[in-house]
Amino acid sequence: MAASEGGTARRARRQRGALTHPPRSAAYRRISNPFPPIRVFSDDQVEHMHEAALGVLETIGMRVLSPEARACYRKAGAKVDESRLTVRIDRGMVEKALQTTPRMVDFVIRGSTDRLRMGGNHVAVATTGGAPHISRIDGGKRNGTLADFRDLTKLAQSFDVLHVMGPGIVEAQDVELQFRHLEIMHAQLTLTDRVPFIYSRGPDQIRDCLEMVALAHGLAHDALPQHCCCYTAINTNSPLQLDIPMAHGIMSFAEAGQMVLMTPFTLAGAMAPITIPGALTQAHAEALACFVLSQAVRPGAPGIYGCFTSNVDMRSGSPAFGTPEFAKATFGAGQLARRVGLPFRATNANASNAPDAQAVYEAQMSLWSALMGGCNLLYHGAGWLEGGLTISLEKFILDVEMLQMFAELFQPVPFSEDELALEDMATVGPGGHYFSAPHTMERYSNAFYSPLVSDWRNYGQWSEDGSRSATERANTIWKKTLAEYVSPPNDLSRVAALADFVARRKSEGGALPI
Amino acid sequence: MAASEGGTARRARRQRGALTHPPRSAAYRRISNPFPPIRVFSDDQVEHMHEAALGVLETIGMRVLSPEARACYRKAGAKVDESRLTVRIDRGMVEKALQTTPRMVDFVIRGSTDRLRMGGNHVAVATTGGAPHISRIDGGKRNGTLADFRDLTKLAQSFDVLHVMGPGIVEAQDVELQFRHLEIMHAQLTLTDRVPFIYSRGPDQIRDCLEMVALAHGLAHDALPQHCCCYTAINTNSPLQLDIPMAHGIMSFAEAGQMVLMTPFTLAGAMAPITIPGALTQAHAEALACFVLSQAVRPGAPGIYGCFTSNVDMRSGSPAFGTPEFAKATFGAGQLARRVGLPFRATNANASNAPDAQAVYEAQMSLWSALMGGCNLLYHGAGWLEGGLTISLEKFILDVEMLQMFAELFQPVPFSEDELALEDMATVGPGGHYFSAPHTMERYSNAFYSPLVSDWRNYGQWSEDGSRSATERANTIWKKTLAEYVSPPNDLSRVAALADFVARRKSEGGALPI
Repeated sequence: MAASEGGTARRARRQRGALTHPPRSAAYRRISNPFPPIRVFSDDQVEHMHEAALGVLETIGMRVLSPEARACYRKAGAKVDESRLTVRIDRGMVEKALQTTPRMVDFVIRGSTDRLRMGGNHVAVATTGGAPHISRIDGGKRNGTLADFRDLTKLAQSFDVLHVMGPGIVEAQDVELQFRHLEIMHAQLTLTDRVPFIYSRGPDQIRDCLEMVALAHGLAHDALPQHCCCYTAINTNSPLQLDIPMAHGIMSFAEAGQMVLMTPFTLAGAMAPITIPGALTQAHAEALACFVLSQAVRPGAPGIYGCFTSNVDMRSGSPAFGTPEFAKATFGAGQLARRVGLPFRATNANASNAPDAQAVYEAQMSLWSALMGGCNLLYHGAGWLEGGLTISLEKFILDVEMLQMFAELFQPVPFSEDELALEDMATVGPGGHYFSAPHTMERYSNAFYSPLVSDWRNYGQWSEDGSRSATERANTIWKKTLAEYVSPPNDLSRVAALADFVARRKSEGGALPI
Repeated sequence: MAASEGGTARRARRQRGALTHPPRSAAYRRISNPFPPIRVFSDDQVEHMHEAALGVLETIGMRVLSPEARACYRKAGAKVDESRLTVRIDRGMVEKALQTTPRMVDFVIRGSTDRLRMGGNHVAVATTGGAPHISRIDGGKRNGTLADFRDLTKLAQSFDVLHVMGPGIVEAQDVELQFRHLEIMHAQLTLTDRVPFIYSRGPDQIRDCLEMVALAHGLAHDALPQHCCCYTAINTNSPLQLDIPMAHGIMSFAEAGQMVLMTPFTLAGAMAPITIPGALTQAHAEALACFVLSQAVRPGAPGIYGCFTSNVDMRSGSPAFGTPEFAKATFGAGQLARRVGLPFRATNANASNAPDAQAVYEAQMSLWSALMGGCNLLYHGAGWLEGGLTISLEKFILDVEMLQMFAELFQPVPFSEDELALEDMATVGPGGHYFSAPHTMERYSNAFYSPLVSDWRNYGQWSEDGSRSATERANTIWKKTLAEYVSPPNDLSRVAALADFVARRKSEGGALPI
């Protein structure tokens, strides 16, 4: 019978037999991207959008709802119209801000001398965040709780490929609003050493959280600006509007020397023009306006240029993610970020209601465009479902598998005369096989990626074992991972100080969000 | 409340309401790839592998089981060792073959003056093929039949994004072997105008099939070499071996001026060295040897350089697909194909046993590496499951959705002053929305990709409608597509001639495969 692709696969399977080896060690704590970013626009087109965005800031400007922020913009040279709450920013102010914004953000990691870098070709990955709901295939969907938040934090700690806590992962809706920031901060600073996130929900909450970060790092509060340990995320109220908590967040974090992620969330056809160049131009203007504010507060304050431009379904108005337009916008936003020399954040999003095939193909469109578009911070990296309204435990695991595959893809291919195996090729000869060749035996234990979820057994073995789908296997994996969770090394005196702080602030009534 | 990514999405949804519009017309009949191919190797490394492959052909050579093929190689200048059945090929012969192999293959399409091009930045997509089994989620897995073959051919005809029939799609196991080629050829030449595939299963079957192709195109048999209308696929018996039917296929198709897809199927660690550079070097040598044979038969015979290099799971010996190593090998093979100036085939494969999340994320790794690796023919584009042993009807539809998304991604982004929407940005102003802006109204009906499977409704609407997964929706879609199938325009006299031919050859006893 002739050679065939299926036939060769079967032959390989038969000849191999059962060769066991230890699972490949996963070392994804630091990831660099060796690929040049994919581009959708010419340099001229990028320049055109950048110039247009500068024009938008000069002629239309941003509406800034916070009087303190408007004062700050005015002091930096903006023309402020107090009746319309708008600030107009000239290009000189933008250029000045871009000159002082760092090209690279270096995070201090608790309990480690190592740094987590964002910028250049360094890539960090954050979990999903901001979901009001949590779901699991064997328990359905419900409101998030503090216990869920803690479980998700433990899951984040369990995978090297996750480096940053997403914004709030899931809302701990069973904790009263004035105490919630204290509880989720405590979880982030004890259950994981991943970079913690702080919501910009007003000065009192931010002060509490930054105090806790300083305690966890054993730093005096006034030493914090010299150590970037945490971050907040800012979304503009597109189009061209910055609300009070967001403006305050930019100012507080810049003052504290902590990182601010500036992300206009622009849905083309809704909060931004329906075209990709139009939506990106508006988002670029909004992001630049945010950097002007942060650099006015503290030149050198760390920030990241965020992209979250997608489209709405023009039939229903529903937001869509992981679409071809989303991918193109991500590539284009990366080009704009690099034009202004800033670290770039992109997003692993999808609009599926279940952790199914749609969730995965939309996530993959997002992941490839983000990671091959040169992002330095992949946001909502693990768990996102339902346009961000739900974090799915199974999707979390499926995302970790996909992220690990990218981390492997980013490893360089070893290349040498020895790697070519020409001697073994001669020894094995035509029609032979390489299973027991010396070249194979030297390498087989860690030659290939060892998957987390994928099941490569044949159909018979797989069906005898219950015909479980990848999503069902992910359900088993998150439970096992939680059961085997190992805490990061914690300084016990700092843990005690954190507990004391939380107790005191609770007794004082906590702090409500604004 | 502060702006948030979830909040903005909800706001967009609320404000939009129900705006209906006709689905975007899908025009994916011809696809060009605007992106430069992704590379994993330096030019020096590519040159090193190419030189090493030339050395392999000179010193080890290929074992060629067919005496006619060995004679042909000898006549072209190879050193033939009849006792070991090996042919050693010097680099001059390879260079000569590469000089005469066309850089571009132009297929004649039945009933059309348009051509389907493979080469340059043109991309064509073939369905999956070669599967003994077929599966559906509401009927399980079973052996393929002629009725299945006909249904899958109708599905291929129904989507513009599929251009080529995969190799046999599914085995029509209910048809006796001596008649099978006649029946599947008849289906391909009447139910679709996609480029038909012919198995290389011996001279008698090939002669029948080429005769039918000539009849379907209204060509005299001796006019066929001037019109590339169909193709065969050749897999070497790696390592470094070419069996009798495959060698005969190359020679017959070269003689008839029809396209030959030359694909060494090399699983690193099994039929090829365990390293990517080693596996690619061996595959490159095998492919080059095949081109030497085709060009020795007929200089200028069309061919495509195929890559199907993946790895085995070193624990079980099972083949794995859509892995990080698979992606790297695909990028690298594309570099080697371009080094020798040949059109490049890559593969949409996965190793999942079900049309689930694993099937999709492995397929996406395959698709991105194939399409962004610069392939000109995407093989096994739709339907592949279980390492190619099964064609899944639901996976077929999921693949079509993913392929359409790529076809959209490959469309250029319109860019002009007008596209930037600066006037509307001023009119809408800070805090407004673009739903009813003139810029939106002019474009909303076809601004974005309109999905086949994705469900973007909110969770409430989706769950009220049965909480159906993407795979379940795909099940509905293939049934609906089959029910609405429209035949391509067929010349009735040619259809009659085909039927007569099949009846006559059946009465003569058909032709057995070799």
